[in-house]
Amino acid sequence: MSAFLEGLGAALGRQGLLTDDADVAPYLTDFRGRMTGRAQAVALPASAEEASAIMRLASEHEVPVFPLGGNTGLCFGAVPTAGGNGATGIVVGMRRMNRIRNLDQAGNVISVDAGVTLSAVHEAAADADRQFPLHLGSEGTAQIGGLISTNAGGTGVVRYGAMRSLVAGLEAVLADGRILREMEALKKNNTGYELRQLFIGAEGTLGLITGAALRLHPPIGARAHAWVSVSDPQAAVELLSRLQHRCGDAIEAFEMLNGAEVDCIRGHIPRVRSVFAETPAWSVMIELGDVDPNASLQAALEEVLAEAMEAGLVVDAVIAQSDGQAADIWRFRHAITEAHKIEGVGIVHDTAVRNSAVPAFIEAASEVTAQRFPDARVLVVSHLGDGNVHFTVMFSHAYWAALPDPEAKALEVEMAIHDVAARHGGTISAEHGIGRKLVTELERLGDPVRLAIMRDIKRTLDPKNLMNPGALLA
Amino acid sequence: MSAFLEGLGAALGRQGLLTDDADVAPYLTDFRGRMTGRAQAVALPASAEEASAIMRLASEHEVPVFPLGGNTGLCFGAVPTAGGNGATGIVVGMRRMNRIRNLDQAGNVISVDAGVTLSAVHEAAADADRQFPLHLGSEGTAQIGGLISTNAGGTGVVRYGAMRSLVAGLEAVLADGRILREMEALKKNNTGYELRQLFIGAEGTLGLITGAALRLHPPIGARAHAWVSVSDPQAAVELLSRLQHRCGDAIEAFEMLNGAEVDCIRGHIPRVRSVFAETPAWSVMIELGDVDPNASLQAALEEVLAEAMEAGLVVDAVIAQSDGQAADIWRFRHAITEAHKIEGVGIVHDTAVRNSAVPAFIEAASEVTAQRFPDARVLVVSHLGDGNVHFTVMFSHAYWAALPDPEAKALEVEMAIHDVAARHGGTISAEHGIGRKLVTELERLGDPVRLAIMRDIKRTLDPKNLMNPGALLA
Repeated sequence: MSAFLEGLGAALGRQGLLTDDADVAPYLTDFRGRMTGRAQAVALPASAEEASAIMRLASEHEVPVFPLGGNTGLCFGAVPTAGGNGATGIVVGMRRMNRIRNLDQAGNVISVDAGVTLSAVHEAAADADRQFPLHLGSEGTAQIGGLISTNAGGTGVVRYGAMRSLVAGLEAVLADGRILREMEALKKNNTGYELRQLFIGAEGTLGLITGAALRLHPPIGARAHAWVSVSDPQAAVELLSRLQHRCGDAIEAFEMLNGAEVDCIRGHIPRVRSVFAETPAWSVMIELGDVDPNASLQAALEEVLAEAMEAGLVVDAVIAQSDGQAADIWRFRHAITEAHKIEGVGIVHDTAVRNSAVPAFIEAASEVTAQRFPDARVLVVSHLGDGNVHFTVMFSHAYWAALPDPEAKALEVEMAIHDVAARHGGTISAEHGIGRKLVTELERLGDPVRLAIMRDIKRTLDPKNLMNPGALLA
Repeated sequence: MSAFLEGLGAALGRQGLLTDDADVAPYLTDFRGRMTGRAQAVALPASAEEASAIMRLASEHEVPVFPLGGNTGLCFGAVPTAGGNGATGIVVGMRRMNRIRNLDQAGNVISVDAGVTLSAVHEAAADADRQFPLHLGSEGTAQIGGLISTNAGGTGVVRYGAMRSLVAGLEAVLADGRILREMEALKKNNTGYELRQLFIGAEGTLGLITGAALRLHPPIGARAHAWVSVSDPQAAVELLSRLQHRCGDAIEAFEMLNGAEVDCIRGHIPRVRSVFAETPAWSVMIELGDVDPNASLQAALEEVLAEAMEAGLVVDAVIAQSDGQAADIWRFRHAITEAHKIEGVGIVHDTAVRNSAVPAFIEAASEVTAQRFPDARVLVVSHLGDGNVHFTVMFSHAYWAALPDPEAKALEVEMAIHDVAARHGGTISAEHGIGRKLVTELERLGDPVRLAIMRDIKRTLDPKNLMNPGALLA
C-alpha cells in the first residue's frame, strides 16, 4: 500500500476508506451507466476535519480528488477521470456526512452536512413548519453538497431562485486542506468578496463542500393551478407578464410545452390525462401559491386568464377545481422523460435565453432543425419564467439505429442548437452544468475573457489542479 | 506632462481628463468632508472602451486607479489615498457614463451605464410600469456602479435582497484593460464560476464596473402599515416569524427601535408625530406590500397583530388608516439622522447577526456599553428582518468636547461593539462596506482563511495592486 493510502487509512479509519476493487467499482460510473472512470480508492470522510486531512494528503502526494454526492448528475461531473498529471485519483464520497446540524426556526436557516439528501432537508423543514423550496426528480438521492456544486435548479426557480439563492452559508475544504467556514448565514455582510458564490456551481473544481446553511421559507397555504392553451410562445410571454403584474411572487411554476411534446405524452403514456380534447398548439401549465391559506389565488387566476382571453392571448384555459385535477396537470408534465424514451432518441438541450427572447430562440432553433435535421421532430418544454428551454431534437429509434456514427450526429445536433442559443445571447447550460459533457462546447462558445479569469481563479485556489480535474475547464 | 497623462488625453479627449488642481480638488474628499486624498488627474470615460484604455495605460505606467461613483459612501472607499507603491494615482469618475442602454419590459431587465443614478433607474422603471426596489437616502446622487461595488442595502432588503440580488448582468474593466461583458442577464446559467458576484461588493478593488443589467419587479398595488409596541426584541423576533408565516413575501419593511431612539426623535424633531402617547419600550414599524391592488393586507395585519397581542407578544398597535398616517410613521423613522446630530456624538455601528440572535446581541452590546462607557446612552434601530442592527453609543456634545483624544475613544467604542458582534457570529459591516474606515478592524476580526483567499484573488486579478489600493484589504 502506498504512503498516500496508508496516510488516508490512518486519518479515516476502516470505515472511511475503500480500496478493494469490488468496493470501489460502484463509485466509478454515472447513474445512467454511460461513463466509467477509475480510482485507486474511495475516501468517506465523517467530518470537515477528516475531509481536510484527505486534501492535505492528496496535495502532498499530488493525487487528484473527485468529489461525489448522490451521483445524480447529468453531465458526468462526478466521474473520476484521470488527473491533469495523468495520475489515478481517489473518489471522495460524502455519504457519511449526513447529519442535520441545526435548525434555527426564528432565523429560518437549516445547517447541514454536505452529504444530507434533499429529501431529508425537506422533511426536517416540514417538521419545523417550514419549507425548503428546491425540488427535482432525484431529491431522494441527490445530496446538498452536489446540488450546491452544480447550482441545481428544478421547477421552483421562477419564485425562489436556484440553489445559489438558497445557500446562506458554506463550509468548504480547499485544495491544500484549509477549511473555509462561512456558516453564520447572515443576510447582510459587506466585508469583502463573496467567496461562497464562487464555490456554488464550481462543480467541485475549487474545493470540497462539507457543509451548508440553507434558507428556509414559510410553507405554502393555498395553491391554484391552470392549464392554458395559447397560440404561440409570444402569447405565453405576454401572459406571464400579466400574471407577474397581478400576482407577483405567487407564481410557483410557469411551464410551456409545444403541441408535439403534448402529443408525445398523450401517445405513449395513456395513464396521464390531458384536459383538452384537442392538443393545443402551445400549452402553459401554471401554479400559483401563497403562504396565506385565505389568499384568493383562484379568483386572481380566473381574472388574469379572462382578460388575456379577451386580449386574444389565450385560446382556452382550464382551472383545476380540485387537488386531483391539479395533480393531473403535474402528472402529465412529469411524464415527459418516460414518453421521450418510448418515442425515440431525443437530443435534449438545456439552453436558456432571457425570457423575452424565448420565442425568437425557439423559432430559430426549429428552423435550423428543419433545415439540417429534416428527419427529426422538435419537442419543447420550457421553464418560461427562467428563460430555460429544454429543446429536444427527436429521432425515431429506427432512424437512430441505422446511423453509422450516432455520437457524431448527436454532437452535430448539439453544436447546431448551441450556436442558435449563443446567437440569442443565451447559454448552453442553464441548470445541468458543464461536467465532462460540455467542456469542449464551453471552450468553443464561452467568452474568452470569462474563461481566462475562471482559469486564473482555478490556478489560484488549486495550483496543482487536483480538484475534480477534467470537469468544467479544459 | 507625463507620458501617462498624454496617453490619457489622447484616449479621452479634452472633456475626459481633468488635470488642473482646481478641477481635480472636488474629487478628492468624501461627501462629509472627513477625509481627503490626492490624485494627479481625474479621468472621465464616456464608454467601456475608454475605461479600458484608461486601465491599459494605468497598468503600463503602474498608476493606481480610484473609481468614483456618486461619492455617497460612508467608509471612505472612494478617497484616493496613495497606491501600494506610494505613487499618486488618478480618480476615474463615472458621471459621463450616464445612459440607460435598454429596458426589456417582458424580460424585466434594465441595462444601464455605471454612472446612472439610482433615481434615474427608479424613473425609467416607473415609466415602464415596473419598479426597481432598492431605496436609500442618497438615491438622487448615488450611482449604480458605486451601489454595486458596495453591495448597497437600504430598507427593502428584507423582501428584495441587497444590490447583490438585483444585479442580473455586469460589464467590468479589469486591471489590465480587458473587458468582461456579462450583460445577457440570464436567470439560469450554469457554465462555471459566478464571476459577477465577485465584483459586487468588491469596492472597486478587482475592476472598474462600467455597466450593469438590473432586475425589475412589478409595482406594488396595495400597502398596509403599522406601528407596534412590544416589550423586548425577542417579542419582535417572534412577531416577525408570525408575520412571515401569514404574509410571506409581502413584508416590505420591519424596523425595530428602542425607547431611547424614539425619545431622541421626539425630543429633538417636534415636527414628526409619534402615534403612542407614551414611548414604547421597543417599537416595530411594519410595511406590507402586494402587487395585487385588491390584496387584503390590512385585514391580514390586523389578524396577526390581534393574535400576537393575545399571545402576549404585542403590547399595543396602531394600524395606519390613511396614506397620511402611513407617511407619518416613515417620517418619524427617517428623522433619526437629524435627531442624532442634535442629541450628541453618536458612534454608529453597522453590525448584523442572524435575526434570531438579534436579542442576545443587543443585550450583550448594551451591557458592554453600560460597563465600559457609563456616560453614553444606547440608541438602537434595526432592520430586524435582515439581522442588521445600527447600534449607536451616544455621548453628549459636552462630554465629547471635553475628551483629550476623541478619535481614540471612538475607536475604543467601535472595537468593543465589534467584539460583541463577532462573539455572536456577526459582522462588523452589514451594508456600509469596509472602505478605508474598517480595514484594520476587518484584519483584526476577519477569518484568516477567508482573508487569505481574498488576497489571493486580488493578486490574481490585479497583480500590480492598482485597483483602489488601500480600500478593503490591508
